[in-house]
Amino acid sequence: MVHQISPSPRVRRSPYYEATIADGVVSFSPYNHMLMPTGYGDPMAEYDRLLNGVAMWDVAVERQVEVAGPDAAKLTQALCPRKIADMPVGMGWYVPICDHRGTIINDPILLKLAEDRYWFSIADSDLLLWARAVAGERGYVVNIFEPDVSPLAVQGPKAEDVVASIFGEWVRALKLFEFREVDLRGMPLMLARSGWSKQGGFELYLMDGKRGVELWDIVRDAGAAYDIGPGCPNGMERVESGLLSWGGDTDDETNPFEVRMGRFVDLDCADDVIGIEALRRIKEEGPRRRQLGVKLLMEGRMGPTDRRSEIRRDGELIGMVTAHAWSPRLETNIGLCLVNRDLNPGDVAEVFLPDGGKCEGEFCKLPFL
Amino acid sequence: MVHQISPSPRVRRSPYYEATIADGVVSFSPYNHMLMPTGYGDPMAEYDRLLNGVAMWDVAVERQVEVAGPDAAKLTQALCPRKIADMPVGMGWYVPICDHRGTIINDPILLKLAEDRYWFSIADSDLLLWARAVAGERGYVVNIFEPDVSPLAVQGPKAEDVVASIFGEWVRALKLFEFREVDLRGMPLMLARSGWSKQGGFELYLMDGKRGVELWDIVRDAGAAYDIGPGCPNGMERVESGLLSWGGDTDDETNPFEVRMGRFVDLDCADDVIGIEALRRIKEEGPRRRQLGVKLLMEGRMGPTDRRSEIRRDGELIGMVTAHAWSPRLETNIGLCLVNRDLNPGDVAEVFLPDGGKCEGEFCKLPFL
Repeated sequence: MVHQISPSPRVRRSPYYEATIADGVVSFSPYNHMLMPTGYGDPMAEYDRLLNGVAMWDVAVERQVEVAGPDAAKLTQALCPRKIADMPVGMGWYVPICDHRGTIINDPILLKLAEDRYWFSIADSDLLLWARAVAGERGYVVNIFEPDVSPLAVQGPKAEDVVASIFGEWVRALKLFEFREVDLRGMPLMLARSGWSKQGGFELYLMDGKRGVELWDIVRDAGAAYDIGPGCPNGMERVESGLLSWGGDTDDETNPFEVRMGRFVDLDCADDVIGIEALRRIKEEGPRRRQLGVKLLMEGRMGPTDRRSEIRRDGELIGMVTAHAWSPRLETNIGLCLVNRDLNPGDVAEVFLPDGGKCEGEFCKLPFL
Repeated sequence: MVHQISPSPRVRRSPYYEATIADGVVSFSPYNHMLMPTGYGDPMAEYDRLLNGVAMWDVAVERQVEVAGPDAAKLTQALCPRKIADMPVGMGWYVPICDHRGTIINDPILLKLAEDRYWFSIADSDLLLWARAVAGERGYVVNIFEPDVSPLAVQGPKAEDVVASIFGEWVRALKLFEFREVDLRGMPLMLARSGWSKQGGFELYLMDGKRGVELWDIVRDAGAAYDIGPGCPNGMERVESGLLSWGGDTDDETNPFEVRMGRFVDLDCADDVIGIEALRRIKEEGPRRRQLGVKLLMEGRMGPTDRRSEIRRDGELIGMVTAHAWSPRLETNIGLCLVNRDLNPGDVAEVFLPDGGKCEGEFCKLPFL
């Protein structure tokens, strides 16, 4: 079901807003007290553009939490159960932020700008509050704030050509999650090879909220030769690719080991890293659940939904489908699931769909593609 | 501008959702990772119903953060710069929650359920994370979680009659913010005299998310004799009444003294209450800004907007209008402002409106009415 959203000063406007309106955005999703464009009226064309061409996304909702000052490294390490001592300046890392119970409260990309300066490029929860609480309680000397930074993503196999045509051939050498500060006609930017798809691309972290439309137009003009068009984090592609949506695919008890993030946890972190003791215990006992893919053996194509589907075996609730999507490449409906750990790829169980129907679900490893 | 919102599992559904759809809701606003109904198609009728009759609101977005266990009182006090020792069980208090800088990060109603059990009925920020961070860092033995609680508000001069017809005449004796646990046809509820309007009323804190539509229908049926109708926290009434919208009327530097919440701060709280030292300093130095009302000397009626208006005197930026509304009772456009402390009621300054126009603004004390 699609609804209207009314304007409120609580919900901040993206610097790219007017540009996305001009380009025909039809829907949004709330995220970090802002609105993220979620469609421009032709989902299959947007999917195709991401898979085979190049798309540009207003992802200003990926807010940054900046941690700067004498104790910045100390605080950043305290927040991350991954050893950041060896992280080089100019690199980003995917990190699970956990609470003291080992539960994931956000899954940002952490960017190291300097030895004493970091950005958490966050998912949809108020990590700013969390970071400030910890710093305040520990008495760390550090400045924590949301800087004027608004990412614009350029995604798809032709993204590199577009970005190279704007910034130069050097961008082709950037490694995944590597970034560099650049100046574009006086606009300060961080340019990173990153983005919430598996189709490759870049994120332009604009550091001047007044110049969003100008940046949008530059990218659109440069991309015209490659048939660029507007898009958004793509529900179909991200389920196919097994990308995690924090808050959607997680609940209030999800730890990193349940959702394939164990490799981003270093259990030998210092004891004052938040959640590390809980994570060691969970690892030893074995997580209770796991994340798998599911193919839904049903007719028709599922659209986006805010509902989860229950998964049952012999009547017993054994998990939930947290995200549903039609897969154009697999030509079937698929989903991401959180299920009991004893469920295995190849197993079959009953899925109770949001519309009241049910079907068989066949489980598989992630990603699908 | 009004936009469509697309469904996402990150954005949770209210237990009253189907009922509000059936009653013709036309728009929503994101709040605490949920959607709050913001209109049913006839703003003036909804305003009139609130002022002169009775309205029912889906305010399930007012999530509860429950703090329970041996150290519950200790944690709750640490989070509140207001002495809670004398707070009786069965009462709610309005409290500013501040960070270590004395900045307001939420302005909940705090409900005391028992000596070792509290609910923070929160505004639109992740107070759950804040509370857990503090408890985790201090090693408090306490359970912090979001319980299955979804308020339904009944507001307006006839609200008491409606609520008495459902629960009995005793409800008329409830004091402001007093609450009591009740059972309605097997539905567990907390019934409180409260609500985000100045027209009087109650909030029914439903403690079973499966029974939202049932409760909605009971209230609607009981209210039929009083011409009840659906509504929502009302932008016009709340600006007239000077009710604060956290995140809308506040920014990342707003302290309680700036927004008329000084009377909810006890400066002689213990030193381990978060923010108390900063609040003492701010009080001594005097806050930098103050909240006033403004009458906009312009033609036409302003509708809801996500924009703030700049306020300038002799060209210098001296504040911002954080909320605009047409006032049916004053028959003029009005607003809430955060302005430099040297601006006084009766002063006049230039207001630069969201649509690009400008007008004179005449400042006044709050509330307007």
